[in-house]
Amino acid sequence: MSSTEVKLSRLLGLAQTFNNFYLLGFQKGDIRPFLVEGQQVGLIKSDVFKQLRKYPEVFCIRDCESTNQGLVELNPAFRDYNERTAQLEKVLRSLRTDGIFSALHGWRDEYFEVKSEHKGLLKMERAATPLFGVRKYGVDINGFVRHPQHGLCIWLQQRSNTKETWPGKWDNMVGGGLSVGYGIKETAIKEAAEEASIPTDLVKNLVSAGCVSFFFESDQGLFPNTEYVFDLELPVDFVPHNADGEVQAFELLPANECVERVFTPDFKTTSAPVVIDFLIRHGYITAENELNFTQIVELLHVPLQSLYTYKTRLEQIQKQQQQQALPNDDSCNCNTPTIRPMENGHNKAAA
Amino acid sequence: MSSTEVKLSRLLGLAQTFNNFYLLGFQKGDIRPFLVEGQQVGLIKSDVFKQLRKYPEVFCIRDCESTNQGLVELNPAFRDYNERTAQLEKVLRSLRTDGIFSALHGWRDEYFEVKSEHKGLLKMERAATPLFGVRKYGVDINGFVRHPQHGLCIWLQQRSNTKETWPGKWDNMVGGGLSVGYGIKETAIKEAAEEASIPTDLVKNLVSAGCVSFFFESDQGLFPNTEYVFDLELPVDFVPHNADGEVQAFELLPANECVERVFTPDFKTTSAPVVIDFLIRHGYITAENELNFTQIVELLHVPLQSLYTYKTRLEQIQKQQQQQALPNDDSCNCNTPTIRPMENGHNKAAA
Repeated sequence: MSSTEVKLSRLLGLAQTFNNFYLLGFQKGDIRPFLVEGQQVGLIKSDVFKQLRKYPEVFCIRDCESTNQGLVELNPAFRDYNERTAQLEKVLRSLRTDGIFSALHGWRDEYFEVKSEHKGLLKMERAATPLFGVRKYGVDINGFVRHPQHGLCIWLQQRSNTKETWPGKWDNMVGGGLSVGYGIKETAIKEAAEEASIPTDLVKNLVSAGCVSFFFESDQGLFPNTEYVFDLELPVDFVPHNADGEVQAFELLPANECVERVFTPDFKTTSAPVVIDFLIRHGYITAENELNFTQIVELLHVPLQSLYTYKTRLEQIQKQQQQQALPNDDSCNCNTPTIRPMENGHNKAAA
Repeated sequence: MSSTEVKLSRLLGLAQTFNNFYLLGFQKGDIRPFLVEGQQVGLIKSDVFKQLRKYPEVFCIRDCESTNQGLVELNPAFRDYNERTAQLEKVLRSLRTDGIFSALHGWRDEYFEVKSEHKGLLKMERAATPLFGVRKYGVDINGFVRHPQHGLCIWLQQRSNTKETWPGKWDNMVGGGLSVGYGIKETAIKEAAEEASIPTDLVKNLVSAGCVSFFFESDQGLFPNTEYVFDLELPVDFVPHNADGEVQAFELLPANECVERVFTPDFKTTSAPVVIDFLIRHGYITAENELNFTQIVELLHVPLQSLYTYKTRLEQIQKQQQQQALPNDDSCNCNTPTIRPMENGHNKAAA
């Protein structure tokens, strides 16, 4: 086995690492759907919902004795987007003061909009989203060069040492989370200017190239992330430079060195899927040089959709019960169906 | 809403169609793992395993009364690859004579190798694989042109009216199943020459671009397919022509017309994922013009791996039982764990 093959066989291990929650999280503890207006918008671990019990005016935490499973619901009495946002924020600020959750140490005063089926339900401080397992969306730009001597080369950024998350780690050339009020391509263009000073005449070559989805867990909480991926071919002589203080260095690496960098602890784990997807789409990682190729491609696109389908499952069960004319089970104080989060729920939108 | 948006919103419906078994199949009936040498290599519907009961010397069909679930196992007494192949083939020829399964009307005298963890276990007549729900692998080449007037254009082939499967349907420029003894890129190059007479100096530009996975069901049986995808940019003046009689026409279509063609009943349903993946990777279908973008990307990469993990689940359950020192349940005549096929099984190879 050549040294190239040895390196690439580590890819499956890495794909399993950034999917550590997808693969093993549901076996480890009591993970509950988080509902807003009857829609599942998150997944909450027991360490978090135990704290939320202190705020019964904001969260209904229902247990079903029959199934030993339950859910966390934002008080359905809240009237609208603004009231939901304000009530949740009150709790988050209180939890921040308590200092229990390290995720809240990184409070940013920046909002993330929680949506269901494209409808905004509330906005939440970005730093809090891992506690609620809310699906997060971001954009990433693969800046690359077809170098006459070195072949396919990729620009990486080194994150500033002062960033709240992953300080000092190597990362994709440009990346950022989607924030309230910004479109996907709009965010990519804005971040390209702020993080890497990409001029307008180059950023016009941005090519939408799909998305990657994975489900990572760290001591900060849960990261069910989808990253919209863009490719940007750059001239050999272009050098990015940072404009917003969030990046401390850029480096252009040949594809083989880039793979090696991604495996080091100096690389941001949750940015690895974007690099791997890029190297697969551009013919550098192939079914010929990577034995676990199809499995790795699956792990770049895990079915997050299927983990956020409480409402659909409830409706299906209620429909079945109606058809079978079964009496409701009054011994259980909720209508919660058995939660099987790893079931496929794509049929939510079945034709 | 513009007419482009209306067209693209139909993509989710199409992605659900080529995943009709993935989304709904497991709810519809008794689907059993098919085991060879203790490894799950397939999924068998009840209409098939009812017929296999006629061959108890070849198939062990075990039921577990407690769980009302079971499995189909090739007789573990068969000594090796050749004996397994010969014994299975005897049954398949008998079933073909019976004429019950339309899949076997398309008998090809062409073998597909059934593997587990990269080890060949037996080979099976290609036409029979849908009856056993064996994972199939193929290659596809997206032949495309960057046209000075029409922009991104894609070559499609029309399948010969005499083909056993999908006769007369429109299809990707080049495609073919992986057969015993051929590599992935090797198959792509071979098919490029046979189907479209792509000369050596052009085929050298072939770029590996990933794979798509989906799970389709038709009246022929089950199609848990993974297609290795290659892109091939072609000169504007190149025109493919068929060399093996399997193609009756080629047509170059601008991207928008290509999307329209894919939606027609004249397009081979199981080739649509390759075209959609191509149009996503090349920036034609984007998160901006397709509301269900992330869901469609997920449906191009469904976790087939997680449906073929009987052995892993059995080992996990046995390990748990040993740890808990639980007595075996003697009321059940098998060690079958509860089969929950939609569970995630990627942890098979967990680090």
